[in-house]
Amino acid sequence: MSDAALPATVADVPTPCLLVDIDKVKRNCKRMTDTARNMGVQLRPHVKTHKTIEGGDITTAGTRRKIVVATLNEAEFFAANGYDDILYGFPISKEKLPRCQKLANQLSEFHIMYDSVEAMQWVKDTPLNPDKKWSVIMKVDTGYGRAGVLWDSDDVVTVAKAAVDADNVKFLGIYTHCGSSYDCTGVDELKKFGTTNTDRLTTVRDKLKSAGIACETVGTGSTPSCSKPADNMAALTEFHPGNYIFYDYEHVRIGACTLDDVAVRVATRVISHKPSKNQLVTNSGFTSVSHDGIKQIGEEFCVVQGHPNLRLVEMSQEHGKIRPATGDLDFGEYPLGTMLFLYPYHSCATAYNHPLYYVHSGEKIVGVWRPTRGW
Amino acid sequence: MSDAALPATVADVPTPCLLVDIDKVKRNCKRMTDTARNMGVQLRPHVKTHKTIEGGDITTAGTRRKIVVATLNEAEFFAANGYDDILYGFPISKEKLPRCQKLANQLSEFHIMYDSVEAMQWVKDTPLNPDKKWSVIMKVDTGYGRAGVLWDSDDVVTVAKAAVDADNVKFLGIYTHCGSSYDCTGVDELKKFGTTNTDRLTTVRDKLKSAGIACETVGTGSTPSCSKPADNMAALTEFHPGNYIFYDYEHVRIGACTLDDVAVRVATRVISHKPSKNQLVTNSGFTSVSHDGIKQIGEEFCVVQGHPNLRLVEMSQEHGKIRPATGDLDFGEYPLGTMLFLYPYHSCATAYNHPLYYVHSGEKIVGVWRPTRGW
Repeated sequence: MSDAALPATVADVPTPCLLVDIDKVKRNCKRMTDTARNMGVQLRPHVKTHKTIEGGDITTAGTRRKIVVATLNEAEFFAANGYDDILYGFPISKEKLPRCQKLANQLSEFHIMYDSVEAMQWVKDTPLNPDKKWSVIMKVDTGYGRAGVLWDSDDVVTVAKAAVDADNVKFLGIYTHCGSSYDCTGVDELKKFGTTNTDRLTTVRDKLKSAGIACETVGTGSTPSCSKPADNMAALTEFHPGNYIFYDYEHVRIGACTLDDVAVRVATRVISHKPSKNQLVTNSGFTSVSHDGIKQIGEEFCVVQGHPNLRLVEMSQEHGKIRPATGDLDFGEYPLGTMLFLYPYHSCATAYNHPLYYVHSGEKIVGVWRPTRGW
Repeated sequence: MSDAALPATVADVPTPCLLVDIDKVKRNCKRMTDTARNMGVQLRPHVKTHKTIEGGDITTAGTRRKIVVATLNEAEFFAANGYDDILYGFPISKEKLPRCQKLANQLSEFHIMYDSVEAMQWVKDTPLNPDKKWSVIMKVDTGYGRAGVLWDSDDVVTVAKAAVDADNVKFLGIYTHCGSSYDCTGVDELKKFGTTNTDRLTTVRDKLKSAGIACETVGTGSTPSCSKPADNMAALTEFHPGNYIFYDYEHVRIGACTLDDVAVRVATRVISHKPSKNQLVTNSGFTSVSHDGIKQIGEEFCVVQGHPNLRLVEMSQEHGKIRPATGDLDFGEYPLGTMLFLYPYHSCATAYNHPLYYVHSGEKIVGVWRPTRGW
């Protein structure tokens, strides 16, 4: 979209669409950068939330170095745009190795993650250029219960050794995605959680050290824990959060940010009145909002800015139904065409649904970001 | 993607991805075409589920005429590919009228929907070329409770008259999206529902006739009701279903199709084992499956083909967690790299997440479809 074709102001955007408040983005990113620097920890931002070059440039402060990606599509997109030192932060699988091989040969630094002896065998069996070695990080499960080697099992040594013993592999260190931080509420809980998580990860580091295996990198991710870090997280070498560029209502509920920090909103318009149901119909269905969160917290999974009594109670593909939590709607307050702004529950899920984001500073639209997509 | 770059067979596709069984698609489409023809009703297929030219060509039997779209992006995409006689099946709003104006001037037939006097005023205020009139259908609510004029209110006459009285408007008729059909279970309930829905719509038609307003078009949509139509639906002039091209697990539960009719699956692979949680980790998160359905039916919202005891219990952005409904997993049965196939709960939501679909006949990959996207 040429600048000439941009809507002038937020009030002019086509709906539904995703709005990105660039000033909040910059503030969120500066805060996280400062947090990491003050703790002496390298920030390696995750790009999966925004999937854009523009977002990557802000989170890496223009260096285009040291990012985490969730998909090879993201890795290839960022590499094609001059990014380097990319970590593919997803357990490696055999089918992905040919594409990883190309990236490892092409970039000055490309790292992969693994969590089993079997996966490491596939890596060892995949040759790189003679001047290259696979740079690998072992994924550790410190309690989240998704992928990763269990932190308190002897497998951590066995699985690490599988990489250390290989000629064409450099064992870089360990990483945990502390996803259980999403179950915390409030700063105290987040810090307590962060302390335990770090203790578990450094226990693995020390156990590996005792086995003669050094970890250059000891990293953790998750926006909640990195937004309100525990003191002992300074013992780590890398933080890998991603969502903080935008934040969302889930992070407000967790206590990782305030509603004023949330940098993305879905703009929608009232397209029909339904007095018999005490209901407004909008043009934002699940294709623009996403259902993520509706299982966890029901009708409060998304917030209508400036209208605390309104609830997005149901969505179909292109329609949203909004009702008051209590009382009767005054339809005169919401004439057809009224623009409403929804703070998403999970901005990663919401942003994924949009082919472009309208970026604004104050009320002025200043640009458009186009995310990559696919796997 | 050139044919040379296509994966040879289903076993070779990159994961996650969406698989489309072209033979089932053709069978589903033939059945719906036959149903409508046998009842003497015009089929106007909705394109919102697949959003592809290839899917449109099959559902229109190659005519590229008479489709419904949910977004103007779809309308413009199909119009640019030679489609005509397009119904924009979403309540018209003021902001969309400039784009509708272009389509109405460009196509030989372009129809819009409206559900209020106010919206009709915007239409009247938007001029078309001298040889053109706006072709409009009034949306009626026969009980679904979303958009549309309430079928049993006097508003149906008032709102219809607003169009009939305008010089630059042709009042084409009425339409209802009978979305409550999704609450039915079994053919008997579907037929009973369809009977009532039709009675209500023909009541509106007759009421308008009494007021001197003729309805050339009297239409209804929804895949459940059109898959198992009630006899009195032969009194209608148009059916507007869309999902039937793919169907999904929701329609199996409703009784509108069998699992063997479901033409789309998400292909995923096991990427990690977690014995401590009795759990397989896959590479299909909510970005490839979608959360739609998880609120309604919890962990059974998606079916793992050929493994009736497996449940997709949780998803994050790129990970899925699969556990047995009962008993302990035999991890030896599911080595890393094992491919699994998920029948989506709601194929419209799942397909929306995919930048391309891999189309197969039997086990052979025969092509790729690329859907449009946006609003």
